[in-house]
Amino acid sequence: MTGRVYGIGLGPGDPELMTVKAHRLLTGARHVAFFRKAGRKGQARTLADGLIPEGATEHPMEYPVTTEIPLTDPRYNEVLSAFYTDCVARLAALTEAGDDVVVLCEGDPFFYGSFMHLYTRLPEGSVEVVPAVTGMSAAWTATGQPVTWGDDVMSVLMGTLDEATLTRHMKAADALVVMKIGRNLPKIRSALDAAGRLAAAWYVEYAAMPGQTVQKLSDVPEDHKAPYFSIVIVHGQGRRP
Amino acid sequence: MTGRVYGIGLGPGDPELMTVKAHRLLTGARHVAFFRKAGRKGQARTLADGLIPEGATEHPMEYPVTTEIPLTDPRYNEVLSAFYTDCVARLAALTEAGDDVVVLCEGDPFFYGSFMHLYTRLPEGSVEVVPAVTGMSAAWTATGQPVTWGDDVMSVLMGTLDEATLTRHMKAADALVVMKIGRNLPKIRSALDAAGRLAAAWYVEYAAMPGQTVQKLSDVPEDHKAPYFSIVIVHGQGRRP
Repeated sequence: MTGRVYGIGLGPGDPELMTVKAHRLLTGARHVAFFRKAGRKGQARTLADGLIPEGATEHPMEYPVTTEIPLTDPRYNEVLSAFYTDCVARLAALTEAGDDVVVLCEGDPFFYGSFMHLYTRLPEGSVEVVPAVTGMSAAWTATGQPVTWGDDVMSVLMGTLDEATLTRHMKAADALVVMKIGRNLPKIRSALDAAGRLAAAWYVEYAAMPGQTVQKLSDVPEDHKAPYFSIVIVHGQGRRP
Repeated sequence: MTGRVYGIGLGPGDPELMTVKAHRLLTGARHVAFFRKAGRKGQARTLADGLIPEGATEHPMEYPVTTEIPLTDPRYNEVLSAFYTDCVARLAALTEAGDDVVVLCEGDPFFYGSFMHLYTRLPEGSVEVVPAVTGMSAAWTATGQPVTWGDDVMSVLMGTLDEATLTRHMKAADALVVMKIGRNLPKIRSALDAAGRLAAAWYVEYAAMPGQTVQKLSDVPEDHKAPYFSIVIVHGQGRRP
């Protein structure tokens, strides 16, 4: 009997926004694995605080690099690929011994994120994925306004895209979600401006986490340092009886 | 003391994919309101089966029309607007008497859906919205493949859009989600074909519900009658170490 890997989405941050299923799997886990940056506790592990059963074994998987090597450097992919292969070997050692492993994922496991790099390397049929509330759902809920109405087109954009690509998509869609903000905030702001959407843009930090803030993007200082957990939302204005 | 309205997302269908918070609010509710088509039980109410406490009062809100009047007819908006105003009056009568009301919402309340038409008519600060796992998350999870990688652009499209608009967005984005399928399936198929995306499209019915099916859209018969709970997914192919 081989064990299974459960990739469970923990949702946007508030432990109450975890699904009942993720909560059940987590509180019944014997092995819990999670990614983290070396030397940090890790956001996924932090979300699981108080829910991992006593006696469960924790398996941190520490990224060998995060931003030290640029994405465009071929070594980045090589180093990360070797890392994911190694993580999968560790998980496989557990499942081959008959144990189930719960892998903690921030947000929804199949929506961006890192878990999918393990998923595609694990044997087909050996993994169950539990979807979750996304960070973007928490962000638009935090703005207190529905994000899409009627036939609105919604596009999700990464702030790492080049400005021309961002502008083109920002013009084309009705509702917008921009993630991976960080140092890309000035570029995102400029693209929104070029697309005529800056005045309608909201900026949310730490949605559904302690320290949540919501403001018009136009009120955010030019030199503001955006944390990892920041999202820009432009609401659609579609049909509304 | 006036009561509050809680718009709780119930998620995609599987009761275990409800959030812990929605579950807590639902199982502690004294008043539960939900939309339904006249003469039907209603999907939202069905999802709450076995979770509404004994003695709680149920408040069905029955749509005066669904597809009997075309969306383009001005009477459609008039009739629905009067209906939502009436629903809000019913909720306000409860909250003014000091009672909290839980309003059941399919999927995520602020992502398409009907709850937002109540939300915008209720006094500011009197409503709390609980985000949820979306139907699209359940659909891409059901395909067994991550929907977005790296810097993929994801667009969410309604099948009710005209074919040229659908085609344009299907060409522009990396990952696609198409909802509101029903009688629009032939048009959606044709737009995907024109955009060169048909071969990569998956068709999911009843994601995270009993009777879930997943197949390549190209394998779905031309004359297939798509139910309300059907979603088309095209996965992004972005950066993957």
